[in-house]
Amino acid sequence: MKRSFGILLCLFLGLTGRSQDEAALKSQVRHAIDELVQFVSIPNDALDAADINRNISWLTREFNERGFNTSVLPTEGRPLFFAALPMEDDKPTVLLYMHFDGQSVDPSKWDQSNPYKVVLKAPENGEFTEKSFDELNDDINYDWRLFGRSTSDDKGPIVMFLNAIDLLKKENKNIPFNIKVILDGEEEKSSKPLPKAVREYRELLAADFLMINDGPVHGSGLPTVVYGCRGITSLSITTYGPEYPQHSGHYGNYAPNPGLQLAQLLAGMKDEQGRVTVPGFYDGITMDEATLQVLKSVPEDSEKINEYLGINTPDRVGQFYQESLQYPSLNIRGLGSAWIGEKARTIVPATATAELDIRLVPESDGNRLKKLVRTYVEGQGYHVIDSIPSREERLTHPRIATLREGSVTDAFRTDLDNAYGNFIVKTMGSAFGEPVVQIRIMGGTVPIAPFINELKIPAFIVPMVNPDNNQHSPNENLRIGQIDYGIRVFYHLLSNQM
Amino acid sequence: MKRSFGILLCLFLGLTGRSQDEAALKSQVRHAIDELVQFVSIPNDALDAADINRNISWLTREFNERGFNTSVLPTEGRPLFFAALPMEDDKPTVLLYMHFDGQSVDPSKWDQSNPYKVVLKAPENGEFTEKSFDELNDDINYDWRLFGRSTSDDKGPIVMFLNAIDLLKKENKNIPFNIKVILDGEEEKSSKPLPKAVREYRELLAADFLMINDGPVHGSGLPTVVYGCRGITSLSITTYGPEYPQHSGHYGNYAPNPGLQLAQLLAGMKDEQGRVTVPGFYDGITMDEATLQVLKSVPEDSEKINEYLGINTPDRVGQFYQESLQYPSLNIRGLGSAWIGEKARTIVPATATAELDIRLVPESDGNRLKKLVRTYVEGQGYHVIDSIPSREERLTHPRIATLREGSVTDAFRTDLDNAYGNFIVKTMGSAFGEPVVQIRIMGGTVPIAPFINELKIPAFIVPMVNPDNNQHSPNENLRIGQIDYGIRVFYHLLSNQM
Repeated sequence: MKRSFGILLCLFLGLTGRSQDEAALKSQVRHAIDELVQFVSIPNDALDAADINRNISWLTREFNERGFNTSVLPTEGRPLFFAALPMEDDKPTVLLYMHFDGQSVDPSKWDQSNPYKVVLKAPENGEFTEKSFDELNDDINYDWRLFGRSTSDDKGPIVMFLNAIDLLKKENKNIPFNIKVILDGEEEKSSKPLPKAVREYRELLAADFLMINDGPVHGSGLPTVVYGCRGITSLSITTYGPEYPQHSGHYGNYAPNPGLQLAQLLAGMKDEQGRVTVPGFYDGITMDEATLQVLKSVPEDSEKINEYLGINTPDRVGQFYQESLQYPSLNIRGLGSAWIGEKARTIVPATATAELDIRLVPESDGNRLKKLVRTYVEGQGYHVIDSIPSREERLTHPRIATLREGSVTDAFRTDLDNAYGNFIVKTMGSAFGEPVVQIRIMGGTVPIAPFINELKIPAFIVPMVNPDNNQHSPNENLRIGQIDYGIRVFYHLLSNQM
Repeated sequence: MKRSFGILLCLFLGLTGRSQDEAALKSQVRHAIDELVQFVSIPNDALDAADINRNISWLTREFNERGFNTSVLPTEGRPLFFAALPMEDDKPTVLLYMHFDGQSVDPSKWDQSNPYKVVLKAPENGEFTEKSFDELNDDINYDWRLFGRSTSDDKGPIVMFLNAIDLLKKENKNIPFNIKVILDGEEEKSSKPLPKAVREYRELLAADFLMINDGPVHGSGLPTVVYGCRGITSLSITTYGPEYPQHSGHYGNYAPNPGLQLAQLLAGMKDEQGRVTVPGFYDGITMDEATLQVLKSVPEDSEKINEYLGINTPDRVGQFYQESLQYPSLNIRGLGSAWIGEKARTIVPATATAELDIRLVPESDGNRLKKLVRTYVEGQGYHVIDSIPSREERLTHPRIATLREGSVTDAFRTDLDNAYGNFIVKTMGSAFGEPVVQIRIMGGTVPIAPFINELKIPAFIVPMVNPDNNQHSPNENLRIGQIDYGIRVFYHLLSNQM
């Protein structure tokens, strides 16, 4: 799944191909490694305000040194960090979004004692072996990796950006864009203050397009541009049997079973190929031939995906993986009724609960979809409420379901033919001499809808890091080759004329 | 739901109705209370062998004092206690089964500090108030209760039997039966050694009929005879999605959802009224008009049962509660897939599991029913295995289900027109001057099938204790009136000629 950066370097033409430029880039990568080690050494769990402030101090110094004006924007939660190069009226403005906080760590689950102290490792015989940083001084092996919290998610891309700026300045390159940078301090805790903050700072953040540098490149390792991401909402459904659990001998065949009710409800929501049968669920979704061609152009092999998942036959919401992501999902993320396994008891349980998450696409408003499910449940003869039924309700209604709705994070999707998108694809394509993977919408959810809703600008995700980076998990890591990649991406996008 | 023993006493004719006999009975009840307090004071959790032996010592003394020959029968677990009055060849033999072990106790959940130290309480204004045992010396209030582990389940009936023997002896009554008593020492731990022990001691245990004195009388409080009980087996079904849980954004709509598969399987096993639709599940079950009349004669009010359960509409396996119990059940006793509630995570889970219990009737062999379910699951396109699928199996089969089967405890049911059954009903009916509730089969499972299978004799459950005795729970109790009831039942059954 990983691209060969050796081959890539041979093909590389963007930095003019002269060997001294290659040397300059490599030297910049070496510098970026040291800078990332330093940045990662400042713990960044958003639960700790003081640590977040220490990260902001580091960012302020680094951005100031590079000629950015910076400010710290208070929010209802952790502050946002803002930086901008001096503005010129005639240039289009790009707003970059990254984040400097990281997932919480449990050091006992890491192979290193301190997840904030970067460890250098080389892949050898299918394992990773620790290396001394001194070994980087002669030559840099791009397959070696930096292990530590946020090396990939998302301090790595910030450091790549800073070093791309260094390189542009060293070469006195003209930057034909105004650059604004907004760095989130609690993305890993869901960026709760963001919607209000974006509203409040909308004039400061005004831009022509938004570029998000977070998440991994496509599994093929090819240069990747993502035009959107699915949104999400959730729904929990609880059905009711007897008011209290009852002996399954005394009341089995008489007291209604909540698990059966739930199974019948869920079974009626989807067909056997996983397509939602709730009327209206896929309304409004159409794809023309050109769109289908872009989806099909993503270099993916169904067989490999299935092998990765350990499955024989996938659901058939679309005919292939990328097409499936163009639709909203209705996923049973959890089921529970009484106990399973050793703890199972011979009872008719009192309740059964299904937790659903619904991934959204722009055509599918989250509240509308939840209403469709509610209507379906009511159509099955259920009295639908949003709390635990009272005794009176239990005695009155043959069937009762409690539906609890989670909040909605909207999807976003920029048109595939957007001019800024065309520019990004063209620039990356010529910089790397490789096809650019265009993802119309990615399956997961990045909470940046507030930017798009408030600023009304096209947005693109341009990821930088390796797909196998253990994001959100112990032993998070960044392949050194990706630093080269990220610096190149920023260098070209920020120096090429549209 | 409780009968009035005040009214009962006025109606009482069995002990000839003379006031000196009533006084003798009441004095015997007083004696039985003291004896029960003493017996309960010996802890009887079968996990503790020494305690079980201390109970056997007590039983040996009490039965010997009443002229029984006793012996302790070793088994693979706790010993059985056996007692018999001297045998006479021309008399039919009754074998009584009771148990002297009790459920484990958690004193912190009881209203009294020591569950083995009986506390006397009176119901006052909807609560129970502690009373001194001295207050029983003037008169015995039959609504007062004795709280302690095994007061009802099942030491109470043993003490009632001993005191009925006392009364029969005091009155020099002829006992037209040979009496054998077998007392179980680990019934609450499922009587695992019993099948083998009954085989081993079958000659010693040989009898013409078996009477089990365990469990509560019918909810109406009327004299009750039970002709059988359902058996039980279990089945767990696990379905599979991706090999490891996957991000619901990245793979929702593509990786198959195990919860949906499970829901579709379960939904297909029963209709919306709870009737099993798996072909053959109810095969062989017929009820003639006479049988239906016996079922209908049980004084039960559906509305009250529904109110007790907190439901509006019961399942419709039968047209009413007693009829429903004549069929095997297929109960979803537990469901689990990933997490619900606060712990729910946005994943496509790797597995989903349903725990089923199947209550059996004599027409429904447990292994046959499990095979029917297995055939049904296979018919839905599943590759059915009994272990966790290998990676190769996952990649080969579109759908996989793991079925794990529990052991089978058979049902038993004695014919409603059995001669011993007729004798019991007639005797109890005339003793109490009230209709006797005849339960053709009770819903729960008593593990006495080994007796019936080995000894091939008719069996009857003649319960003694109040329905609201908190059996198996904290604050187990016995209504004092039930001691009177139990002594009378034994007195009449053991002194009336067939």
